[in-house]
Amino acid sequence: MQFSLDCYPCAVRQALLAIRQTGMDEAAQSAAMRRVLGELIDIHVGASAPEITMRMHALLREITGVEDLYHEQKAFSTREALSLYPSLKEKIQRSSDPFETALRLSIAGNIIDFGPQDSFDLAATIQRVLDQPFALDDMESLRAALAECGQVMFLADNAGETVFDRLLIETIGKPTVYVVKEAPILNDATREDALAAGLDQVAEVISCGARSPGILLEKCSSDFLDRFWKASLIIAKGMGNYEALNTVQAPIYFLLQVKCELVGRDLAVPRGSIVVTKRGK
Amino acid sequence: MQFSLDCYPCAVRQALLAIRQTGMDEAAQSAAMRRVLGELIDIHVGASAPEITMRMHALLREITGVEDLYHEQKAFSTREALSLYPSLKEKIQRSSDPFETALRLSIAGNIIDFGPQDSFDLAATIQRVLDQPFALDDMESLRAALAECGQVMFLADNAGETVFDRLLIETIGKPTVYVVKEAPILNDATREDALAAGLDQVAEVISCGARSPGILLEKCSSDFLDRFWKASLIIAKGMGNYEALNTVQAPIYFLLQVKCELVGRDLAVPRGSIVVTKRGK
Repeated sequence: MQFSLDCYPCAVRQALLAIRQTGMDEAAQSAAMRRVLGELIDIHVGASAPEITMRMHALLREITGVEDLYHEQKAFSTREALSLYPSLKEKIQRSSDPFETALRLSIAGNIIDFGPQDSFDLAATIQRVLDQPFALDDMESLRAALAECGQVMFLADNAGETVFDRLLIETIGKPTVYVVKEAPILNDATREDALAAGLDQVAEVISCGARSPGILLEKCSSDFLDRFWKASLIIAKGMGNYEALNTVQAPIYFLLQVKCELVGRDLAVPRGSIVVTKRGK
Repeated sequence: MQFSLDCYPCAVRQALLAIRQTGMDEAAQSAAMRRVLGELIDIHVGASAPEITMRMHALLREITGVEDLYHEQKAFSTREALSLYPSLKEKIQRSSDPFETALRLSIAGNIIDFGPQDSFDLAATIQRVLDQPFALDDMESLRAALAECGQVMFLADNAGETVFDRLLIETIGKPTVYVVKEAPILNDATREDALAAGLDQVAEVISCGARSPGILLEKCSSDFLDRFWKASLIIAKGMGNYEALNTVQAPIYFLLQVKCELVGRDLAVPRGSIVVTKRGK
């Protein structure tokens, strides 16, 4: 999905949130904001939304000298999610359809996102997503595809959400490759975040080789791309991956919460929707 | 009130709303947005929020060649408010405290604002504001000051809101000078808008000589300033006037709905509050 005129206020809002937590003084924060605005002026037509976020955060790293602005939030999110793990595991085991419950919980975890929203309520989201009808529902298609595939490639989204993904991976019970970001970007999961969530106990954790919010294939390593194009079934979490991969011809099931009007428009569903949708081939 | 780092996303959002209704093609809209971002980079430290809005709209007029981007919305707002006039007039006349009811309705009308919010519900707002406690309540002080003053200076805010102000002016029943903007800016009331709402039947309508959202004294005509500094009682409507005049030493009662977090912080009340507050001397 391309960066649109409608993305500008959101990009500036996201930059503000990031800048606010640098701890720089007000004048330095203001200077940083001006540099972000300058960066936004330079956007070329056709740039994707994740690409812009990637550039904005590269600039903020350069300005602040901080490699991982969301380090604390990510660690907190993971701890919070891990504290829920036992009760969620039990909920899945007691469910009449463990796969559906685990799928819904993985989507519920997608609320842990410091990009499109200022704040969120994890407990309320879990309750909502367990009951909310899917706005796009390829769940049975995904269930059937999972039954037939040898290995699952799972594209992670955010730290903390990882714990919810782990529950889904455990429930599916297939060999899984869990793909994280090469280095910190927004609150996206890195290897460190995945390991803190115990993903190495249930999957092979690999890096995509890129530092973009959403898997931008043109930024990924050739090692990753080899595996990506050979994958027989890919589960991609979150809006960033949808924005990056929605037109890619690969067997991708997107699992996400629609937290942005534009992504909703692209999917033809309202903001607030939960979605399991297959795109591509 | 100074333009703050927190104002940037809102300024970009307001620019987007304005640009979207120009009818220009997407490329021209995108170019306009880039020029707005450039303008925001150039803001000098200490600029006020209304000053930034003023500069942004001057730039949009230059880009689009359109003098009054909100012309249709203003005309619609005035027609809609006039259609409510008879029932609201009756509500005031039947009230056990006509002054309070008219005061509340004038503040309810302050919801008609295309700046800080994307949309609003006028009917629901009227109901809410008739019952909502004032977060800051200088109503009795205002009532007493009105009883003693010879003439009221009333600083208008937006078109449509004018009709609600007219009801308050009729209820107060004092000679009134109704101050509008010299030329169109956002959906602020001009002479044309005030006349369409019938303000000339209840007040002397004058211009402040400036084209700023909120009365920025340094932009006003000397004729207006003469009268402003001689006024014994000033009623100032809306956030723009509060942002422009909150530190001015004049007998000003501010009537407004708090539609922005920062104005709320300055007033020490939550967003969504309604306020009657005297500042200055």
